Amino acid sequence: MANPTAAMLVIGDEILSGRTRDANMHHLAGELTKHGIDLREVRIVSDDREAIVAAVSALRDSADHVFTSGGIGPTHDDITADCVAAAFDDHIDVRDDARALLQAHYDRQGTELNAARLRMARIPDSATLIENPVSVAPGFTIGNVHVMAGVPNVFQAMVASVLPTLTGGAPLLSQSLRIDRGEGDIAGPLGELAAAFPDLSIGSYPFQRNGAYGANIVIRGSDGARVSAAMAQLCDLFPGSQA
Amino acid sequence: MANPTAAMLVIGDEILSGRTRDANMHHLAGELTKHGIDLREVRIVSDDREAIVAAVSALRDSADHVFTSGGIGPTHDDITADCVAAAFDDHIDVRDDARALLQAHYDRQGTELNAARLRMARIPDSATLIENPVSVAPGFTIGNVHVMAGVPNVFQAMVASVLPTLTGGAPLLSQSLRIDRGEGDIAGPLGELAAAFPDLSIGSYPFQRNGAYGANIVIRGSDGARVSAAMAQLCDLFPGSQA
Repeated sequence: MANPTAAMLVIGDEILSGRTRDANMHHLAGELTKHGIDLREVRIVSDDREAIVAAVSALRDSADHVFTSGGIGPTHDDITADCVAAAFDDHIDVRDDARALLQAHYDRQGTELNAARLRMARIPDSATLIENPVSVAPGFTIGNVHVMAGVPNVFQAMVASVLPTLTGGAPLLSQSLRIDRGEGDIAGPLGELAAAFPDLSIGSYPFQRNGAYGANIVIRGSDGARVSAAMAQLCDLFPGSQA
Repeated sequence: MANPTAAMLVIGDEILSGRTRDANMHHLAGELTKHGIDLREVRIVSDDREAIVAAVSALRDSADHVFTSGGIGPTHDDITADCVAAAFDDHIDVRDDARALLQAHYDRQGTELNAARLRMARIPDSATLIENPVSVAPGFTIGNVHVMAGVPNVFQAMVASVLPTLTGGAPLLSQSLRIDRGEGDIAGPLGELAAAFPDLSIGSYPFQRNGAYGANIVIRGSDGARVSAAMAQLCDLFPGSQA
């Protein structure tokens, strides 16, 4: 049976301007692979209402699960929650359960729950909250869309809250081999190997190091015996390469 | 006048599986910002024909320029050129001009131009070649889509070949201020500032360091005097913060 599929939507002007590098995509990709969920697509869009609504609408139709990152804080540019509600045509306002979490948290800190912080309690009516053990302000799940914070340690904590609730498939296993020859030399035999193992994904990722060409060949599949069989044949084709 | 817009399409199973981190997006984002072209969206899809064709078709309609990264090497999983040709309904085969470049290169090296290497000369009929000063095998431009290699140093060289041929807009200028207070304290005054400067983009990027909350506020715009004016007001609102 095919594994469940996922898509990710990163909301972030700061990534599109080149100011920062995204870290959440790489984290989520690794966690999903371990959990047996196939990440099929990632989109990065700017803090723009129309762009966010369109992306959420497209991705929730194309993947079993959608994970979003960013735009759920207290500032004026945090518009993700409202956009996701719009994509689901759901009503959104400050919700009592989320407000209670924030109120208790800020009471403990002796900090005022002001209007800005209260924005973080805006949750669509039909959503369920995602626990945030780092800084309390919750994410939420609506339909098949999981809305999470952009700050990496909060994002990671929310992923850890959500993933155990999702049914995964067979974890994707992989083995790789570094071959210190140009892809042009590797390609012929590799293509024949890929044709002989149509149930596996065999990828070639070229590199150049100190002026010499090489490629990392990665064999992926959910059946460990098949992955090992293909790797054994690959090692026979290119003896002396490094696993 | 509004700046030209761009979108990027990264083709790469290895990024979606969490095996590698993308580096090309960050490079392109920075170069486009300097050139006055607004990167509006990035999509990452797997080495899947249907997914690539659909993404190219969507992005070329939504942005002035589309840049793709990956999938133009000699191995069986390099299908980008054929997919882009399909998205443009153009014929593709080994083209004489690209073959001549490769033939001369491999002759100099004393390497055979075998069937696998010859795949890198597959270029759509209506495309123009993008120079590759690193490893010769060219990229190409068809319509508003620029098809480039995934290996970072080759990608960067191709970006350097293409960008000077594109008309840019006013470079996006930015100034930033680190404020060592939680976003909940910053959000109110910041929202008012953003409302007073509707021609600028004012973003708040929260962080947590050694248990303390803070945010980097980034003010962006193409009019340097306006950016400076907004930054001066921001510094007045939060004295003692670090530019």
